[in-house]
Amino acid sequence: MQLYFEPQLRRDTTFFTLDANTSRHLVQVLRMEAGSTIGLTNGKGLSALAGIVDADKRHCRVEVRSFTMHEKPEVTLTVAVSFTKNRSRNEWMLEKLTEIGVSRIVPLVTRRTEKEKFNFERIEAILVAAMLQSQQYFLPAISEPVELRKIETDGYAQKFVAHCEADMDRQYLHKACQGNKDTLVFIGPEGDFTPEEIRYLEGKDVTAVSLGNRRLRTETAAIYAATIFNAMNDA
Amino acid sequence: MQLYFEPQLRRDTTFFTLDANTSRHLVQVLRMEAGSTIGLTNGKGLSALAGIVDADKRHCRVEVRSFTMHEKPEVTLTVAVSFTKNRSRNEWMLEKLTEIGVSRIVPLVTRRTEKEKFNFERIEAILVAAMLQSQQYFLPAISEPVELRKIETDGYAQKFVAHCEADMDRQYLHKACQGNKDTLVFIGPEGDFTPEEIRYLEGKDVTAVSLGNRRLRTETAAIYAATIFNAMNDA
Repeated sequence: MQLYFEPQLRRDTTFFTLDANTSRHLVQVLRMEAGSTIGLTNGKGLSALAGIVDADKRHCRVEVRSFTMHEKPEVTLTVAVSFTKNRSRNEWMLEKLTEIGVSRIVPLVTRRTEKEKFNFERIEAILVAAMLQSQQYFLPAISEPVELRKIETDGYAQKFVAHCEADMDRQYLHKACQGNKDTLVFIGPEGDFTPEEIRYLEGKDVTAVSLGNRRLRTETAAIYAATIFNAMNDA
Repeated sequence: MQLYFEPQLRRDTTFFTLDANTSRHLVQVLRMEAGSTIGLTNGKGLSALAGIVDADKRHCRVEVRSFTMHEKPEVTLTVAVSFTKNRSRNEWMLEKLTEIGVSRIVPLVTRRTEKEKFNFERIEAILVAAMLQSQQYFLPAISEPVELRKIETDGYAQKFVAHCEADMDRQYLHKACQGNKDTLVFIGPEGDFTPEEIRYLEGKDVTAVSLGNRRLRTETAAIYAATIFNAMNDA
């Protein structure tokens, strides 16, 4: 069944008018008619089964038949990652991080980060599409780009920075990362964090880690770290 | 330093003529001159430092100054994966599997695999670019697409099939996968393996596994499995 994102969906909704894009897709593209059933989610854990009552191609109205409140993941992963200058690599990373189920993505501005236009609307559309496609009900939170030194590092049970400086001490992430802990992981830009940035983070109780012996691109490193986190928490 | 792929490179090479593409890139694009140093690899573990002796834009000649024979990974991962009908997703997957360092990729033909043109030359170019970019010296082997029932499953110390059939028994891959074992992992098409295919593989001593509670796309699943394998073997 088709699942649609409707951020306005609330638990007490009975009749609901779908937004223009969803209405057009359902009625014009899929040619759905009154009586058809669709799924809705607000991206905050609530999903609903709804029946079409008025198949209007701009303002399709549905009646909600049942709700499900999905359980929040018990632990959260926040990925603070320097976007690259290649938009398609960034978008691929956003899609995969959503599929894998991270809670929060913070675009990170470091010394070696190449500044790029940050199209919030487009990014949210990618997150929504990946959430729906992988049948999840929680949309990852994403913020505007944040300077490394302005990132809030309190409130996490463990914090890691992945880097490739062979001269500085590192543990393997899969050895250092423990399950059942809210986690923050920093992934650097092409060209890596500077040694000063790594030392700054270490001063904030962030543990330096390695993702293995191969040099991974930024977007691969982010996905790699999220995979390790999931494996530690799928028991 | 720039690293180039020269499959003809041998341990007893002294003078060597680079291929036309590499020559043009070095001499016309990078404007390198006689005396400049470049790196070469044959994708079979051999790398060399070489100095340009004749900066010809079509037949650039170099003199090899030193060789390094890189150690083969002690354990190998073979990923047998059904390609999707989306070429860019396939190409992303090939790039990422190479970065993460898999030994062998077998394009898998299953009941639900959508047949696509298989452009071997283009695929090899992607593997080569990813190998060079991630500074590795072993090119993953790749074969033409193979029918599921024709894949050789002997000679591996452990074998897994990742699927999403909730009714069939599965362990988590990160629990089932052991380090230091040559490994074969099967990743299904969009729409998954059929129950018959899963039972067929189980009959061949292939262990059914889950990659976690989220529904991953084919290319994400392949990268996820390769990440888990690496984590098990990076000690």
